[in-house]
Amino acid sequence: MISLFKTRPEPGALALREVPRPDAAPGEALVKVRCVAICGTDLHIFAWNAWAESNYRPPIPMGHEFCGEVVAVGEGVTHLRTGDRVTAETHLGCGVCPQCRAGRAHTCYSLRLFSKLGCGCFSEYTAVPAAMLRPVPEGVPDTHGAVMEPLGVAARAVDDARVSGSTVLVMGCGPVGLFAVAVAKALGAAQVLAVDVSAQRMELALRVGAAAVFNPVKEDVVACVRAATEGRGVDVVIEASGNPVAIGQCFAALDRGGRMVMVGLPSEPVPIDIVKDIITGERTVIGAYGRRIDHTWLLVERLLRQRVVDVDALLTKPYPLEEYEAAFAAAASGKYGKVLLQPGGLV
Amino acid sequence: MISLFKTRPEPGALALREVPRPDAAPGEALVKVRCVAICGTDLHIFAWNAWAESNYRPPIPMGHEFCGEVVAVGEGVTHLRTGDRVTAETHLGCGVCPQCRAGRAHTCYSLRLFSKLGCGCFSEYTAVPAAMLRPVPEGVPDTHGAVMEPLGVAARAVDDARVSGSTVLVMGCGPVGLFAVAVAKALGAAQVLAVDVSAQRMELALRVGAAAVFNPVKEDVVACVRAATEGRGVDVVIEASGNPVAIGQCFAALDRGGRMVMVGLPSEPVPIDIVKDIITGERTVIGAYGRRIDHTWLLVERLLRQRVVDVDALLTKPYPLEEYEAAFAAAASGKYGKVLLQPGGLV
Amino acid sequence: MISLFKTRPEPGALALREVPRPDAAPGEALVKVRCVAICGTDLHIFAWNAWAESNYRPPIPMGHEFCGEVVAVGEGVTHLRTGDRVTAETHLGCGVCPQCRAGRAHTCYSLRLFSKLGCGCFSEYTAVPAAMLRPVPEGVPDTHGAVMEPLGVAARAVDDARVSGSTVLVMGCGPVGLFAVAVAKALGAAQVLAVDVSAQRMELALRVGAAAVFNPVKEDVVACVRAATEGRGVDVVIEASGNPVAIGQCFAALDRGGRMVMVGLPSEPVPIDIVKDIITGERTVIGAYGRRIDHTWLLVERLLRQRVVDVDALLTKPYPLEEYEAAFAAAASGKYGKVLLQPGGLV
Amino acid sequence: MISLFKTRPEPGALALREVPRPDAAPGEALVKVRCVAICGTDLHIFAWNAWAESNYRPPIPMGHEFCGEVVAVGEGVTHLRTGDRVTAETHLGCGVCPQCRAGRAHTCYSLRLFSKLGCGCFSEYTAVPAAMLRPVPEGVPDTHGAVMEPLGVAARAVDDARVSGSTVLVMGCGPVGLFAVAVAKALGAAQVLAVDVSAQRMELALRVGAAAVFNPVKEDVVACVRAATEGRGVDVVIEASGNPVAIGQCFAALDRGGRMVMVGLPSEPVPIDIVKDIITGERTVIGAYGRRIDHTWLLVERLLRQRVVDVDALLTKPYPLEEYEAAFAAAASGKYGKVLLQPGGLV
Repeated sequence: MISLFKTRPEPGALALREVPRPDAAPGEALVKVRCVAICGTDLHIFAWNAWAESNYRPPIPMGHEFCGEVVAVGEGVTHLRTGDRVTAETHLGCGVCPQCRAGRAHTCYSLRLFSKLGCGCFSEYTAVPAAMLRPVPEGVPDTHGAVMEPLGVAARAVDDARVSGSTVLVMGCGPVGLFAVAVAKALGAAQVLAVDVSAQRMELALRVGAAAVFNPVKEDVVACVRAATEGRGVDVVIEASGNPVAIGQCFAALDRGGRMVMVGLPSEPVPIDIVKDIITGERTVIGAYGRRIDHTWLLVERLLRQRVVDVDALLTKPYPLEEYEAAFAAAASGKYGKVLLQPGGLV
Repeated sequence: MISLFKTRPEPGALALREVPRPDAAPGEALVKVRCVAICGTDLHIFAWNAWAESNYRPPIPMGHEFCGEVVAVGEGVTHLRTGDRVTAETHLGCGVCPQCRAGRAHTCYSLRLFSKLGCGCFSEYTAVPAAMLRPVPEGVPDTHGAVMEPLGVAARAVDDARVSGSTVLVMGCGPVGLFAVAVAKALGAAQVLAVDVSAQRMELALRVGAAAVFNPVKEDVVACVRAATEGRGVDVVIEASGNPVAIGQCFAALDRGGRMVMVGLPSEPVPIDIVKDIITGERTVIGAYGRRIDHTWLLVERLLRQRVVDVDALLTKPYPLEEYEAAFAAAASGKYGKVLLQPGGLV
Repeated sequence: MISLFKTRPEPGALALREVPRPDAAPGEALVKVRCVAICGTDLHIFAWNAWAESNYRPPIPMGHEFCGEVVAVGEGVTHLRTGDRVTAETHLGCGVCPQCRAGRAHTCYSLRLFSKLGCGCFSEYTAVPAAMLRPVPEGVPDTHGAVMEPLGVAARAVDDARVSGSTVLVMGCGPVGLFAVAVAKALGAAQVLAVDVSAQRMELALRVGAAAVFNPVKEDVVACVRAATEGRGVDVVIEASGNPVAIGQCFAALDRGGRMVMVGLPSEPVPIDIVKDIITGERTVIGAYGRRIDHTWLLVERLLRQRVVDVDALLTKPYPLEEYEAAFAAAASGKYGKVLLQPGGLV
Repeated sequence: MISLFKTRPEPGALALREVPRPDAAPGEALVKVRCVAICGTDLHIFAWNAWAESNYRPPIPMGHEFCGEVVAVGEGVTHLRTGDRVTAETHLGCGVCPQCRAGRAHTCYSLRLFSKLGCGCFSEYTAVPAAMLRPVPEGVPDTHGAVMEPLGVAARAVDDARVSGSTVLVMGCGPVGLFAVAVAKALGAAQVLAVDVSAQRMELALRVGAAAVFNPVKEDVVACVRAATEGRGVDVVIEASGNPVAIGQCFAALDRGGRMVMVGLPSEPVPIDIVKDIITGERTVIGAYGRRIDHTWLLVERLLRQRVVDVDALLTKPYPLEEYEAAFAAAASGKYGKVLLQPGGLV
């Protein structure tokens, strides 16, 4: 079968390879991949930045966001059947450490990651530990199934932020930020404001539910947020930029007693004015990593089944897998929502 | 001025009387009434049932849901000014008992009620303790201002139920139930189901956000709810019927671990199967009385300001105050949402 | 080996039988039992009441509360080793239904119960699904290990009640009620009051942390609770009696806005005055069934490891297993905390 | 009467002055002071650091932590009577801004502070806005009444941290830290660990409930905390040091998913490794300022009334007010808990 690999430890260096179709080992399921999506992580590996260099050792198969169909199950797999449509939770807990026992498998002391298990999904088939697979509900299209994992990152952040009835600022409208805008509206935010520098992404944010979007290059974001909230600032910030300057603006735009959920990853430590930004302003800062297993999955399934999030607005048309270069360029451009690929095109 | 009175302790016995315009005593504000709404309590007093008989002693002025404009303030009132548009929180706490100190003024040990203070609002003017008045936000029409108090009853119940991302059943679509349907959608319910026997109210429920509405006279409500929720039952019930049979259906339609907020008032004790309905099903039953002061008011102001609840769909056209008989008949018919009256018509 | 059986479907009818020592089947562990405790369920089966009759079909091995040592593990068991000291969570979820996925395995739609799997522990050895076994922490004596499961019932109820800084009433001082008194103090209740009719159990409640204990046969319990709480009533009730009259007293003794966690099982529906007891009093009623898996286990392990609960005060000396008649008589007397048995005695 | 003043804008410069006894203006109460306590703020004003310089303009009367007796009430004060024992909430909200309406008077947009109102209490009498006064419960000694305000700072931080059943680290054992140790035990922490550099304060921490205390000058604090918690780190940190290095240790000693409540005030921005300390570790950081009005007061009243906190262990003997120099030296030494003064001594 055809599979996309990072071939060498240097920028670029992606290539399609012909490899043998894997089998479903005990505890695994073999999945025929129907649709995949490009994650920020994939872009880091593509660009081969410091983080990628310290985490991966090419050649490695690419990709972990997908929707596919189970075509075979290995020994001992009882809850999946041939024909089931699935996607993957990319974190696998050990099940016995205190974090797992406390219902926090996503912060397991011995967490295993999909991308470290050698199971890339930018390929025609992928063999995956069955415990990682999650159902794609009936009626939900493959394209939505392929983004349940990243949608879950946003859903989890928004869910933890308790946005119901609140004013919300989403800082940074990359794929996670855009999903967060849409989910915040779906979960009952009274008003969603957003910030980004790309005109296309600003437009997408408005389309999926933002009441207003501000461009920090052209506007005083904090003043704009305050003007839109009777001078109070927002109740909730979803920080999805990872940008130190933007993080400072988040605090300045947050009402006293407000909550900030952080999902964007700054590349270095950020100085925080603890007296003003944390203590006298009484903010709560919440770190959110991945999805709550399986609380977040149940939520995402419901959001998709009830069609309360306009996912389509945030997806590109699927590129054929052979056009991976164009797809990665689109993803890296910072202009779109989520970029899709379709492995079946080669068959 | 003209004012509507319950004149005698018997069914009916409403009459418009010419009375002197009140003054704003110290601590009070005088309000020119622009729009009022009929509450279920008003209907009880009109019908003169046992509850009314044990709580009131006619002649008494009618009405407590209104929107008006401050025309004078009494001594010591500092936070209101002539021209302010206001409505009333109808519960006034003492401010010093443990309930009030705990932020629960609505369950104050020495709670005072608007309707017991002699301040009816079905009249051209009403003088009200300033501490009961709440702002009607700019841009919110008088008709919405007049129903902020009952909308608050629904908003509080829904808010306490934590509906964000949940499936919700609203049992009983009187005014509070209908407001609850609309608020549940606004606060992020993934799916709202509703139950009522009136075709008109079923239609209204659909219009303000219910995905489906069931009629217990014609359908097996529990089976319908289960069918609509993959067999699980809903996560949340808002019990707004006060009907013992319906309460049993609520438990049967509620998923394990579900929450039921009770606002409907049964007229007698209801037998509850504690083992099945509470313990092994692990339900949480939450009593909700009035509004959280002022948490709920801030929420209602925001819902109205952001226009995320379709209030208009649930209001009748205002009747002139002189047509109070037609208005009370409409309210008692069980077919409409909220019935409005306009005192200004007589001038 | 020796094992205690319910031999026939009639009152009494317990007998020790010589049976073959079981093997550890795949997925199981074989446990050498060191200490066991008698549950209320065991008493029902002993007395053969209606509940027992409708749930069990003798002959069946007795007992599910134990502490033992793993002596063999079956195929596929990876997280247990010979020599591990263990006890059992007696509820086993399917792992894939929405309840299990939501972290609520104890209310799994396909819940399996220890006592229905044929794995009695009132015997020298017991073979148990490994997924049911839980570690008994180092330094925690076998006698404490044997009661982790019922202590968990109390801990879970108290934990859900959020007692920290609160005044608490424990209604009914059977083993679960007594554990609840002790756990409530350990989890930070400011004041624990308790109710029972047995002088010995009242004494035990005082010993493990109750500030006062009332006897409903001799005192007006509601008046006593109010007198002890400046007239307010308690913030929290743990209802562990299952008695309808006592449940009425619980509501009357509960402050406005208070929480009641129900664990006692009434034998028939209980009429509840929803207006007064739930709505205008704004009570929250919480059903608690079993333990939150594994949140509650982690809590119990910690309470025992840190020795913040005086468990010893609530345990009888272990009876040798052959003296099961005396032990069951003691448990049925309603005078003691938890009655223990020791199977090893026969060897 | 005698009153202690900061006389000039320079280090030291405290002096007792003979001033006229104030009257109770409308809305005020006149309080005869029985016992007072020295706050960290008083030390800053004494030392005249940058913070003091930018906030105060001498001459000003000193002190805001006290217990006294109402000897006169001004016009319009209805809830206080001569003879009432009182202390003061030192924050006064406007009552009408969104923060106040949301039950967050302590972060009022127009917050007024006791120390800015000219009402020092290091004097024989003090006239205070009645809305700031809080009851000292019957049976609670004056010395405890004098520290209800700072005890409230600790109680609020610990309460917000939800310590029940948790392992807790208190970083820094100044008066607030020491109170936090004691309150954490009282509110149900399973295990409290503490850190300080003073042998006396370490001893005090052990005395009021710490299981172990570590000295960062002599020990690897993070390693010690991990060793005491089976390698996991604590569930909760109360950061009461304000020291940037210590804050880094707090994150390193906090389990994944843990909560950190910050009350210590760093003098400059602190660099935070958001990826590791917040996001992948999934920490929640909570800023706590002052007391929740009046939630925290009710809690403090209860803790004192039920005598579940060993306050006495943390108080010095009261110094006569004339010995203020010795008292301030003791407070500045960093060796004691809370230093008390008694104004009555001069009479």
